[in-house]
Amino acid sequence: MEKLPGKTVERLSEYRRILLAYLDAVDDYIFSHDLAALLHITAVQVRRDLMLIGYTSVLKKGYDVKKLVRTIGVIIDSEEGQNVAIVGLGNFGRAITGYFKGKRSKLNIVAAFDNDPKKVSRTFYDVTCYAMEEMEQVVREKSISIVIITVPPVVARVVALKSIDCGIKGILNFTTMSLNMPPNVYLEEYDMVTSLEKVAYFIKET
Amino acid sequence: MEKLPGKTVERLSEYRRILLAYLDAVDDYIFSHDLAALLHITAVQVRRDLMLIGYTSVLKKGYDVKKLVRTIGVIIDSEEGQNVAIVGLGNFGRAITGYFKGKRSKLNIVAAFDNDPKKVSRTFYDVTCYAMEEMEQVVREKSISIVIITVPPVVARVVALKSIDCGIKGILNFTTMSLNMPPNVYLEEYDMVTSLEKVAYFIKET
Repeated sequence: MEKLPGKTVERLSEYRRILLAYLDAVDDYIFSHDLAALLHITAVQVRRDLMLIGYTSVLKKGYDVKKLVRTIGVIIDSEEGQNVAIVGLGNFGRAITGYFKGKRSKLNIVAAFDNDPKKVSRTFYDVTCYAMEEMEQVVREKSISIVIITVPPVVARVVALKSIDCGIKGILNFTTMSLNMPPNVYLEEYDMVTSLEKVAYFIKET
Repeated sequence: MEKLPGKTVERLSEYRRILLAYLDAVDDYIFSHDLAALLHITAVQVRRDLMLIGYTSVLKKGYDVKKLVRTIGVIIDSEEGQNVAIVGLGNFGRAITGYFKGKRSKLNIVAAFDNDPKKVSRTFYDVTCYAMEEMEQVVREKSISIVIITVPPVVARVVALKSIDCGIKGILNFTTMSLNMPPNVYLEEYDMVTSLEKVAYFIKET
């Protein structure tokens, strides 16, 4: 199957998150317009995305939530799961480690890396911290394919390049330093300053 | 002036971030295709966005970086600046407080709120933590218009509603709980699980 567009994958991930909460709290079925309202998008968008993954609703009942969650999982997760490491265990790196721990069974944070000797060999939320020099060995032994980078921006590039050298295929960059990676590495970047500036723009008096 | 589309505002914020780094490290002028490459988008997109804010390049020299940074500031910042509070001083809230502190002169984190008596009255990165009951008074006295919510997901909704009661106009929600807010409040949500799932999807073998 060809890869879906990035924005579709984002929405599928969001649908699943919303649907899991909905299933616990509301009902076994959901209409496209209710799902759309929970995500602040249009029902047309929801139906288009779900048709793209071959999913249709039951007439007058809407989508079967459990089945839809499973279908999304088949599409976006990999069967055997993927192992993830955090690089940089400052406040932010530790917060993320705690946040992800046990959140999705298919994405496991299995290691952390930091240069600080006070952190190396300690565990944070059951995740062991290793020294940067151990990266190649740990990535290989634990079959890690993704790193989340939460180091200071000045070393973000060096850390990203080292990660690629160690065999990492995907990078989630949370530093303010924008990276350029070779095409065989998938890079996702998020800068929360942009989100905050967006909020500030939309509420300012013009 | 009418409000720009949300995606345009995001890109303007990203252009500014990139341009500030570029100015320090590279040159006083930049071509649209160079700016586009740094952001992994097309030069057409860059030119369209900048035309939208009435900005054109100098023939054969490209955009004047300093002027462009100033123009973006005039468009997206508010003149007098905006005051921001963090609600929830767990690992994540503390990381964000440190991260934003001193990053943009127009957005100031001026207070934090938490229920934990061990945190109340203490300062974190020069930001004082107040009790939740003090919120209304502090928001008024410090003219806070935006909150960043980093509480546990189960209390996210209650905290958001309380913030609105206190006069907050914009919310940046970093919890995994999706919120529904009245139309007069601007809400921006970010779930890092989605970013990580996107990376995982694009590197998995199909």
